[in-house]
Amino acid sequence: MENFVFQNATRIVFGKGAEEAVGRETAAMAKRVLLHSGGKSARASGLYDLVRTRLAEAGVAFEELGGVVPNPRLSLVREGIALCRKHRLEAILAVGGGSVIDSAKAIGIGVPYTGDVWDFYTRKAEAKEMLPIGVVLTIPAAGSESSNGSVVTNEQGRYKRDAGAECMRPRFAIMDPVVTMTLPPYQTACGAADIMAHVMERYFTRVKAVDLTDRLCEAVLRTMIRNVPMALAKPDDYDARAEIMWAGTVAHNDLLSTGRIGDWATHMIEHEVGGIYDVAHGAGLAVIFPAWMTHVLRHDVERFAQFATRVFDTEHDYASSERTALEGIRRLRAFWKGIGLPGTLSEMGVGADRIDEMARKCTESGPRGNFVKLGQADVRAILELAR
Amino acid sequence: MENFVFQNATRIVFGKGAEEAVGRETAAMAKRVLLHSGGKSARASGLYDLVRTRLAEAGVAFEELGGVVPNPRLSLVREGIALCRKHRLEAILAVGGGSVIDSAKAIGIGVPYTGDVWDFYTRKAEAKEMLPIGVVLTIPAAGSESSNGSVVTNEQGRYKRDAGAECMRPRFAIMDPVVTMTLPPYQTACGAADIMAHVMERYFTRVKAVDLTDRLCEAVLRTMIRNVPMALAKPDDYDARAEIMWAGTVAHNDLLSTGRIGDWATHMIEHEVGGIYDVAHGAGLAVIFPAWMTHVLRHDVERFAQFATRVFDTEHDYASSERTALEGIRRLRAFWKGIGLPGTLSEMGVGADRIDEMARKCTESGPRGNFVKLGQADVRAILELAR
Repeated sequence: MENFVFQNATRIVFGKGAEEAVGRETAAMAKRVLLHSGGKSARASGLYDLVRTRLAEAGVAFEELGGVVPNPRLSLVREGIALCRKHRLEAILAVGGGSVIDSAKAIGIGVPYTGDVWDFYTRKAEAKEMLPIGVVLTIPAAGSESSNGSVVTNEQGRYKRDAGAECMRPRFAIMDPVVTMTLPPYQTACGAADIMAHVMERYFTRVKAVDLTDRLCEAVLRTMIRNVPMALAKPDDYDARAEIMWAGTVAHNDLLSTGRIGDWATHMIEHEVGGIYDVAHGAGLAVIFPAWMTHVLRHDVERFAQFATRVFDTEHDYASSERTALEGIRRLRAFWKGIGLPGTLSEMGVGADRIDEMARKCTESGPRGNFVKLGQADVRAILELAR
Repeated sequence: MENFVFQNATRIVFGKGAEEAVGRETAAMAKRVLLHSGGKSARASGLYDLVRTRLAEAGVAFEELGGVVPNPRLSLVREGIALCRKHRLEAILAVGGGSVIDSAKAIGIGVPYTGDVWDFYTRKAEAKEMLPIGVVLTIPAAGSESSNGSVVTNEQGRYKRDAGAECMRPRFAIMDPVVTMTLPPYQTACGAADIMAHVMERYFTRVKAVDLTDRLCEAVLRTMIRNVPMALAKPDDYDARAEIMWAGTVAHNDLLSTGRIGDWATHMIEHEVGGIYDVAHGAGLAVIFPAWMTHVLRHDVERFAQFATRVFDTEHDYASSERTALEGIRRLRAFWKGIGLPGTLSEMGVGADRIDEMARKCTESGPRGNFVKLGQADVRAILELAR
């Protein structure tokens, strides 16, 4: 086990009707906030209006900035920064999923920074402070509601990049599983793949003696495997929705990182695909992760065999750990296919023509991943496997 | 799943050499602290002197109060409160195990309170503020390093009682598994039983649809079952010690309580035994928990069968869930016996003569437990089963 420092102070307010607390929670954070949101779904459901009403009742003044799209854009972030500065807003309330939260975080670190906010995403600067952020979560997927990271897409050059710092964890996250019942099945499935990928990025480590966190990872994965099909079969199954929503936070609040070094190459590769093709992040991960697993398997077959047996109840084949491991990958693919996710890049409309470009961009600042360091040729091979 | 609010901001500094951070961490908390500790073990190992040196180097002034004993005493708490007030100390640094931390918490809530600190333990008052507390943990067991609770024994009437409030979570906890390598085997085993009991108190719930937290609980229990025998067989096994130490925190930081209502009757019954006989808390729990399980089993046989299969790899007996459940209890007893813990009250020197008194004291403020509400006759029956 590696030495670690772990602290996650995000206050989680979870359950039926949790959004009623938004006035109280926000007022405890600030009196003037940016109300940041995405498209029409939160508006259509009435959630957005309820938030506005509760803020007003709690005496919180707010400016509104909607229009965040999946793979949130840097241009809107810049707009948000200008808005916060102009109106001297003290905090941000993000109502939405990971894209809205990530956009809010970018605004939050951009406001007190004198340079260009994109510096944080190119590693030219590290965030030291952020406007306080509160969240009303509508999509269980990114885990951004209590994570220390943010992913933003720069339209110039179509770069999708991440920034991370401990100051970037939200102050509070309000999570009502009822809100997620109206998510379209494909979005539920994409969110599930994102959640599972967050766990798997941590699971596949070269650090030895990580017993507790291995088992905690497996617990989250098994919970997803059981509950996602239930939520898809019966979209208003509160219990299944609640399990998925809480799993999404636990998957990415860094408890599962304690004492281990995660890989994250799959996320980096997906960022290249998502930056160019604007595919759903979870769908991209579902396609790339099994390809990555197949490519790196031989570096620690036993770990992949453990994944197969403990997560997917594969019987261990004592004649061949590799056969066991491969069966695990097969079951993972089958699970994701079964919940409606694509199995190949081509199913997502991603052709072969820009694979070289993606492999180059992914590795232009050096090799990717920690389980195995991947060069440009590796990334190319993984994208070919995923075709 | 039940609605919940979860927040745990304790900063964990974990690993080999973590104690070197004590000066920096304490200085960030306060400049004048009470250095609170127990008996001779931390002194003998050199840890205590290292802490004093690092505090001095960091410019932290401190007053010392040692002498905390297992089942920490109210009289020493009162002494600590007086000392803090006299020297206007701003925070407390606890160097030790659960008893030292719990004593520190009692002092910490007592100092700003105008009434008698025992009020918090008799539910006459609820703690609203606490002097900040830092921890250098030496024994993985109580989980007090990031929990919201404290247990103290009032020598007058030999009452062992608990207090709890969100403000009672320590600011930071420094945890070096190396420090735990010199624990005597019996103390390692008692700590293990305490950790496992913290999980099991949460596991046995009547709340339905608690899939994720069930699995997280099972992850912690399985980690203990694997690593405790390894640590006993090879006391300087760093990895095993590290797993146990981190499991002890995760077991009791309330992540495993999210969405569920724990039982806690076993802890309440043990407090009566510990209050009178001064037995090791973990040993008391190891004796009482299987008796409690046997007594309440019929209220939800399937939950006990799930425990048996998922935690102890019992094969589910489809002809009889009860048989499956009983086999789980048998394996739990066998595990605890195998690591050197007593199986009966009499092995701990607890006779039958004061069972009536313990059952009466345990229930004098009403029935105990949430899985099943236990009256005086139930507690009596459980203590008889444990004889």
